[in-house]
Amino acid sequence: MSPDPRDIWLRRLQVHYRLTVGPGESPEVKAEALALEQTVELPPECLAPGEERMAGRVESLGPEAEERCWRASISYDPDAVGEDLPQLLNLLFGNVSLQRGVLIEAIDWPPALLAAFGGPRFGIPGLRELAGVQGRALLCAAAKPLGASAAELARRCGLLALGGMDLVKDDHGLAGQPSAPFHERVRRCQEAVARANAETGGATLYLPNLTGPAPGLAERAAFARDAGCRAAFVSPLLVGLDGMRALAATSGLALLAHPALAGAFLQPGHGFAPELLLGEIFRIAGADGVIFPNAGGRFPLSESPCLGIAGRLRVPLPGVLPAFPVPAGGVEAEAVPRWIGRYGADTLFLLGSSLYREGDLRRAAERLVESVARTGR
Amino acid sequence: MSPDPRDIWLRRLQVHYRLTVGPGESPEVKAEALALEQTVELPPECLAPGEERMAGRVESLGPEAEERCWRASISYDPDAVGEDLPQLLNLLFGNVSLQRGVLIEAIDWPPALLAAFGGPRFGIPGLRELAGVQGRALLCAAAKPLGASAAELARRCGLLALGGMDLVKDDHGLAGQPSAPFHERVRRCQEAVARANAETGGATLYLPNLTGPAPGLAERAAFARDAGCRAAFVSPLLVGLDGMRALAATSGLALLAHPALAGAFLQPGHGFAPELLLGEIFRIAGADGVIFPNAGGRFPLSESPCLGIAGRLRVPLPGVLPAFPVPAGGVEAEAVPRWIGRYGADTLFLLGSSLYREGDLRRAAERLVESVARTGR
Repeated sequence: MSPDPRDIWLRRLQVHYRLTVGPGESPEVKAEALALEQTVELPPECLAPGEERMAGRVESLGPEAEERCWRASISYDPDAVGEDLPQLLNLLFGNVSLQRGVLIEAIDWPPALLAAFGGPRFGIPGLRELAGVQGRALLCAAAKPLGASAAELARRCGLLALGGMDLVKDDHGLAGQPSAPFHERVRRCQEAVARANAETGGATLYLPNLTGPAPGLAERAAFARDAGCRAAFVSPLLVGLDGMRALAATSGLALLAHPALAGAFLQPGHGFAPELLLGEIFRIAGADGVIFPNAGGRFPLSESPCLGIAGRLRVPLPGVLPAFPVPAGGVEAEAVPRWIGRYGADTLFLLGSSLYREGDLRRAAERLVESVARTGR
Repeated sequence: MSPDPRDIWLRRLQVHYRLTVGPGESPEVKAEALALEQTVELPPECLAPGEERMAGRVESLGPEAEERCWRASISYDPDAVGEDLPQLLNLLFGNVSLQRGVLIEAIDWPPALLAAFGGPRFGIPGLRELAGVQGRALLCAAAKPLGASAAELARRCGLLALGGMDLVKDDHGLAGQPSAPFHERVRRCQEAVARANAETGGATLYLPNLTGPAPGLAERAAFARDAGCRAAFVSPLLVGLDGMRALAATSGLALLAHPALAGAFLQPGHGFAPELLLGEIFRIAGADGVIFPNAGGRFPLSESPCLGIAGRLRVPLPGVLPAFPVPAGGVEAEAVPRWIGRYGADTLFLLGSSLYREGDLRRAAERLVESVARTGR
């Protein structure tokens, strides 16, 4: 059957794969098997009439320049997903994760599916408004380390806010440990930042890390909101991608997403292209900003996928707000103005060690803020 | 400092890694960096006195036979985890997932941490009691495919129960799709299996797939329980590992865990050893049985890790019940007696296509059940 391109674009979920075939493996067989494996999980001869409707449909297949690499596009009936983020992940990579040589490079999203997931509730404009910053890049610092008391973390949050950081967040390893229990930590850190704001006239946001047992997530978010927080921090692959979507939908908090565990899905030749997972799927699942390991830091991502992630976070998608790219993972304070030149002003920079190494947190923050103010439009 | 081995065993979480170093990379530097990256996320010179307490401690490091491979053991204060499964995942593989060459091979669990997570609530003995089967391997079939109506899936569940399968489960791609909505499907399938049990005097269990939006999981579990289900099916990496733990702790249902997405964490040289993730972590997180892709099926796992997974599911762990290994992913009905010889009787076999290919589901199930009955002790 020859599909109508408009039908595919508007009504089917089309997934673009890069397949690597093993010796003696046929790309046609691999693509067809993938389309079945991710849906009906039965060979065609076992399907009753009409049941093939939910199987993926191979729309195109062709060789890539590299040996053994093939480009395949497979379309799926969106009813195979329903309106369900865990099932979307399952359809994309559930069973095939256990096979080899399946890289998901891009997805054409039917607008109805995008609407079902909702995307960021604040996005770039909303987070700018919360932080009271227009026309320049935003700056975020982390309250560290795991093991410090809630009082000490709050003191550091206060110093960073006094230094003019736009956002101050919990380190993502701060969960509910006895050294700084969640409720005490959030109360103290938010108070310290509010006090600093009162002193400076600033609007620094404190973002607690929402993690911990799944049934308690909504309560933690509500506690943070009641304590005065307007934004929070979440690791969607730790708490479940749909856990983040639910927080975005109901908490009233703007959300920064951390890529903990994401590297498992970013292996060469098997998994997701970084710009698809971090730039598009995290955004669709409700992140107002997405942290990723910046090129040149402690992680091996090169500049091209980093710019790709930033691009996909901001590209127009029907009904979905743009989200902030948040380069992190070893960004040096003195390099931020140069990185703004690469990423543009609609970027949020997350700094850690680089500020702590200077000793005086407030002064380190001030110097950084001044250097970025000079880049403002 | 020279640590007391009893202190490490009883009080610290010890993680055994296989590190692959890149050209020019030092194994010492890599191990130390890992111990910091997964905890305090600061270089040592930025830590205030006492703050190094939460940093991982490299206990041993030595070369492996293979070039560039090193074995490292790093111990962590269990307070770095708290009692929190998302934070455990984060400590193990959160940030380092984004680096390269870090394979987690084994973990020595402090008994207090095991007690905090709880493990299986039924385990092998409890699931045997629910299914009314002693002294032989258990058999499970899947109701397929995605796209069939709830009535048709229920009809197939009934035929498989009439044929004597011990368990019949939803295919893991059956979520809340419009073709067979969750509540209708569960009600109809459970009814069909109960009717078959009344006819045969059997005790076949029907296991609905618990997935969908995170805030609705507990309600779906309660609905299944009210409908008469005693067990269910869950994909922990789709709904969040802690989502499964919470279901185990509160639903009253025995849980089979599906490895959807798990392949991302099982890459060679980076991630988790299959027997650790599927055999130990899934068990600790509450699975009464864990499905894994059997050797010789549609997935590339070889026999050695499969037997390793089975071993770790059943090995004594303080206060943690043993769980069923559930080989799947292309197990042929006629090969089951032979696989029982490899895995032993405390195994649950999950069959799909192999039964469907025979056309008459009831007759296919009967033949399989007869062949396995002959293996009983």
